Amino acid sequence: MSVLRKSAAVLGLAALGGVGLAVPAHAEVSGETAFVFNTFSFLVSGFLVMWMAAGFAMLESGLVRSKNTATICLKNIALYAIAGIMYYLIGYALMYVDVSGYIGSFSLFYNTSEAELALINGTGGEETLQSVVDNGYSVMSDWFFQMVFVATAASIVSGTVAERIKLWPFLVFVVVLTGVLYPIQGSWTWGGGWLAEMGFSDFAGSTIVHSVGGWAALTGALILGARRGKYGADGSVHPMPGANLPLATLGTFILWLGWFGFNGGSQLALGSALDASAMAIVYVNTNLAAAAGVVAAMLLTQILYKKVDLTMALNGAIAGLVSITAGPDLQNHFLAIIVGAIGGILVVLAVPMLDKLKIDDVVGAISAHLVAGIWGTLAVGIFGGGDLVVQIIGIVAIGVFMTVTSAILWLVLKYTIGLRVDEEAEVNGLDQAELGLEAYPEFGRGSQTV
Amino acid sequence: MSVLRKSAAVLGLAALGGVGLAVPAHAEVSGETAFVFNTFSFLVSGFLVMWMAAGFAMLESGLVRSKNTATICLKNIALYAIAGIMYYLIGYALMYVDVSGYIGSFSLFYNTSEAELALINGTGGEETLQSVVDNGYSVMSDWFFQMVFVATAASIVSGTVAERIKLWPFLVFVVVLTGVLYPIQGSWTWGGGWLAEMGFSDFAGSTIVHSVGGWAALTGALILGARRGKYGADGSVHPMPGANLPLATLGTFILWLGWFGFNGGSQLALGSALDASAMAIVYVNTNLAAAAGVVAAMLLTQILYKKVDLTMALNGAIAGLVSITAGPDLQNHFLAIIVGAIGGILVVLAVPMLDKLKIDDVVGAISAHLVAGIWGTLAVGIFGGGDLVVQIIGIVAIGVFMTVTSAILWLVLKYTIGLRVDEEAEVNGLDQAELGLEAYPEFGRGSQTV
Amino acid sequence: MSVLRKSAAVLGLAALGGVGLAVPAHAEVSGETAFVFNTFSFLVSGFLVMWMAAGFAMLESGLVRSKNTATICLKNIALYAIAGIMYYLIGYALMYVDVSGYIGSFSLFYNTSEAELALINGTGGEETLQSVVDNGYSVMSDWFFQMVFVATAASIVSGTVAERIKLWPFLVFVVVLTGVLYPIQGSWTWGGGWLAEMGFSDFAGSTIVHSVGGWAALTGALILGARRGKYGADGSVHPMPGANLPLATLGTFILWLGWFGFNGGSQLALGSALDASAMAIVYVNTNLAAAAGVVAAMLLTQILYKKVDLTMALNGAIAGLVSITAGPDLQNHFLAIIVGAIGGILVVLAVPMLDKLKIDDVVGAISAHLVAGIWGTLAVGIFGGGDLVVQIIGIVAIGVFMTVTSAILWLVLKYTIGLRVDEEAEVNGLDQAELGLEAYPEFGRGSQTV
Repeated sequence: MSVLRKSAAVLGLAALGGVGLAVPAHAEVSGETAFVFNTFSFLVSGFLVMWMAAGFAMLESGLVRSKNTATICLKNIALYAIAGIMYYLIGYALMYVDVSGYIGSFSLFYNTSEAELALINGTGGEETLQSVVDNGYSVMSDWFFQMVFVATAASIVSGTVAERIKLWPFLVFVVVLTGVLYPIQGSWTWGGGWLAEMGFSDFAGSTIVHSVGGWAALTGALILGARRGKYGADGSVHPMPGANLPLATLGTFILWLGWFGFNGGSQLALGSALDASAMAIVYVNTNLAAAAGVVAAMLLTQILYKKVDLTMALNGAIAGLVSITAGPDLQNHFLAIIVGAIGGILVVLAVPMLDKLKIDDVVGAISAHLVAGIWGTLAVGIFGGGDLVVQIIGIVAIGVFMTVTSAILWLVLKYTIGLRVDEEAEVNGLDQAELGLEAYPEFGRGSQTV
Repeated sequence: MSVLRKSAAVLGLAALGGVGLAVPAHAEVSGETAFVFNTFSFLVSGFLVMWMAAGFAMLESGLVRSKNTATICLKNIALYAIAGIMYYLIGYALMYVDVSGYIGSFSLFYNTSEAELALINGTGGEETLQSVVDNGYSVMSDWFFQMVFVATAASIVSGTVAERIKLWPFLVFVVVLTGVLYPIQGSWTWGGGWLAEMGFSDFAGSTIVHSVGGWAALTGALILGARRGKYGADGSVHPMPGANLPLATLGTFILWLGWFGFNGGSQLALGSALDASAMAIVYVNTNLAAAAGVVAAMLLTQILYKKVDLTMALNGAIAGLVSITAGPDLQNHFLAIIVGAIGGILVVLAVPMLDKLKIDDVVGAISAHLVAGIWGTLAVGIFGGGDLVVQIIGIVAIGVFMTVTSAILWLVLKYTIGLRVDEEAEVNGLDQAELGLEAYPEFGRGSQTV
Repeated sequence: MSVLRKSAAVLGLAALGGVGLAVPAHAEVSGETAFVFNTFSFLVSGFLVMWMAAGFAMLESGLVRSKNTATICLKNIALYAIAGIMYYLIGYALMYVDVSGYIGSFSLFYNTSEAELALINGTGGEETLQSVVDNGYSVMSDWFFQMVFVATAASIVSGTVAERIKLWPFLVFVVVLTGVLYPIQGSWTWGGGWLAEMGFSDFAGSTIVHSVGGWAALTGALILGARRGKYGADGSVHPMPGANLPLATLGTFILWLGWFGFNGGSQLALGSALDASAMAIVYVNTNLAAAAGVVAAMLLTQILYKKVDLTMALNGAIAGLVSITAGPDLQNHFLAIIVGAIGGILVVLAVPMLDKLKIDDVVGAISAHLVAGIWGTLAVGIFGGGDLVVQIIGIVAIGVFMTVTSAILWLVLKYTIGLRVDEEAEVNGLDQAELGLEAYPEFGRGSQTV
């Protein structure tokens, strides 16, 4: 039984020594052990990020009206499925294989290495293990970890364009986003392309993941237009409250949990004291920034509106998380609080501003992911030691790329198979029109128009 | 800050080397380190699989009508509790201790090894640590991991027989299923019994877990009969839609997450580059198969019915997961897509087929777990290098055993304490009749008949 | 493909040996490897405990009425945010830094060690790595793990005082509880203070976390008074059923999952076979006690009331978990079943007893956390080898401290900014009064008074 909680880890080592073995406390991590740590870190971090897909599904389910709830559930599980398949088929190779400046390689199917297969099958020679270990981590564990990131980018889009976009055109957009657009811009930095060479710094993707999703969402919102009745001709904004706020709360908690994998796993290694220490720092900053985002958003809404808004507090958490994502390796944790708090403030200011511009974002994703994503990337230039000019170049370059390509894609869809459901479907709800069922058939107003 | 995301793991090692220590990149994992890895893998994978109990609870809560929701919640937490206790009392020993062909040993209570206790208590000699390490993993971590599997088998049953089975008889069934039936058939393969000797191959339990639950569910559905009003005398099928589809979606995401532990942990070791690489492959195949199951189910329902059905997409994910469970170690990941897609197609075809046969499966568990489980086990014979004839022998042997024993058990319960609630209870809902409360007392039609 | 599931870990090692490298099965864990294990265990266990914040949020969301649901969601995410910030600002140092008997040190901001920064920045000399490794684990990983515990203590309070306490006064209470009260009493044992010196034993906090939250909840319930209409002048108790029992069930499953981190991580080390074995034992006991709590609560309610109550079964799980938390390292697992079952029985008896005393605990937290927490701490004196007298001294000392300080704090809040919403707000619901929104705007009775 451990009584003195603080130093038990050290006591554990001592106790072990007590049974007769000398523990070489100074010995370093062996190569194969590091390989296992690095691989396991990708898998554990990866399943946490996978879980974020459920977080987005719950957040969005809670923030849409009940007549559109089943459709948003379907979109969320479908987009996660599509992201995984597209990233396997072509996305990963475009992003990471033989990147030459602006793009990786076109090749179908990404499989594990010959060396690992030889090791598993026992067909290699003595050098097989060495060859595997020299890679630092298992090939497919890295694929898994990178794959769940592209799914996150796609999840961001679905919330903004909810309640009026058709199912299949949305999924076609996801196919191209996850298979082509995200990987190409991702190759510029994480694949070692031109932005990496300039020194653009985006630890876990404030820009590369969150703003990318945000730009795609913004162009989608502009091209789709607002929901019917959302904005009056007199400039009034008609609130369309979400049907199930506990689910939105649950979704936010899921995202918060998943973000430990998102940012922590982006250390990309665990097999040394250095990496483990760095990962711990990342966890702490991630948590503090999210916490600060919540508190800042609550205080600001109390000041501005004399009431606290639950959905703003939730978006404050997400904005805090997005803000710290570009630089969660801050060594002074107080700065993480500052970064997250500013994120929380930005989201409270951005949501009504978008409404003023009649940009209809059902769940606030543009504010939480794009605005806070830009802020977080700038913050690296301010607090993290990165070059602010380079940070701005990266933000702009990726913003221009995503705006142009996703706008083209939305427009092609609009003028071919059509993007938006008809008026009757929108009034009656997408669940009835697209799926022919109800999310809550027994509750209250059910399929009635709201 | 890592700029070049791809090779940071290797950079990490280099950075470490940079502080003055030579890192022996070629050195292998030590025995005690491997012990810790293997044990921790069981614990982490085990908690993921434990989480699947919540997934089934949410899936089933979402797919029953609101008048039966509290009861299905209670059944799910009770069955997980019972599974753990029964597997501790007798189940594990029946399955894994001194298995001689057809059954393990009868002994009460399964506790940790003398060697581990001596190590922890500091009462052993110099050879204690060696003796512990030689086992490869901590005894109780293995117990924990195996225990959560038996709970999964029980969870499958509750969904199928929902909305008409009495609480306590169902729980008595769970007692026998988790304490006796599952362990006996499990000993045949995983305990090293006669099917293992024949070479039957079921990596994580398409047959041994999922079909076993499915057979028990099928016999239960047949012996219980359909819900009142489900099937008209004229062959019509009356839909009884679930009350809360976001919860069903959440449940599916939970299952998907938990499955990484289910399949990944079934590598049963992490303490070498070989095992870590193999586990990474398993994660990837698991994800791809589930994704393919979703996409295939969506496309097929769109083609067949001109609409996509959310519940079919969810069942497509589950069927994809069940399908890959027997052989998630496929080295060509494209095959995982094929296996999962066929699983997704099968579930879309099986659900209406069961309705045609008037077999009333409330959540589609027979289609997703039994049908896809059989397919996944056959797929190992087709794609995985297993012997197809042996695979069929295993499927049939376990199917016959489970059908006969569970039918006897259901019938004994039926003619003793009774299995099915009376008409009034079924019409008013099990929540009122069995628990005297409502799951959603304030929402809509509440306890009214639906 | 592993056929013989039981011994695959050992087979894995053998297979590795087969590729030409001699595996030194007897070699021990190196110091740096242990450091990584210990650190990663804190991070993984920590994220599981963080997830418990979502569990409390869902449990409480499900057990309050719909008119108060959004507010309880907000309180739960806000308290988790505040706990993290306060514990960073002052709490951790008060609890763990230079504890001299009754309190740690007053210092602002807790940051990582110079040695770790030097290692990460590459600015240290050759002894840097050694210095980091000698600490046994990364400094901030420990902070993260300890921080999530203080959040748990705060979560317990919110459920009891729900449906009538104002938002901001509650959050001020959380600020002091997490920044000052919890850390001070925590320093007595876990910081190495006077209770640690006496030998008080509370492995993961039956008393130090759960009873502490429970005492704060109890004083809050007494000072706030019961909800209007809860208790009739004639001694009758008016049930106010929760609006969404599937969410309460989900919350309980989340707590159960998180508890593996709560108790398992409290081994505080993973970097040896001893620690890994001990952690496995903790996982198993944690699960068995929870399971026994469910079964005992179900059987007792069936006997007492002829019906099983879902909320009692859920509270039985939680009570079982709280009960085992002081001593989850029991080497005879059957004792864990006994400890948990008694916890489950206690909660079934305590809930109506509190109602008889007109202490209005909305979610049963006092019964599940305080009563079971006391029982669990005593159980260590009975079954765990601890000194029963010392256990009682610890329980009483912490109880007196928390009762006095939290009562003063509640009273100060009551007579300054006020604690309780006015009658109109309570009748209409806190969501309308405090947030100006509805949790379920489209469902059933919605904002109507219940």
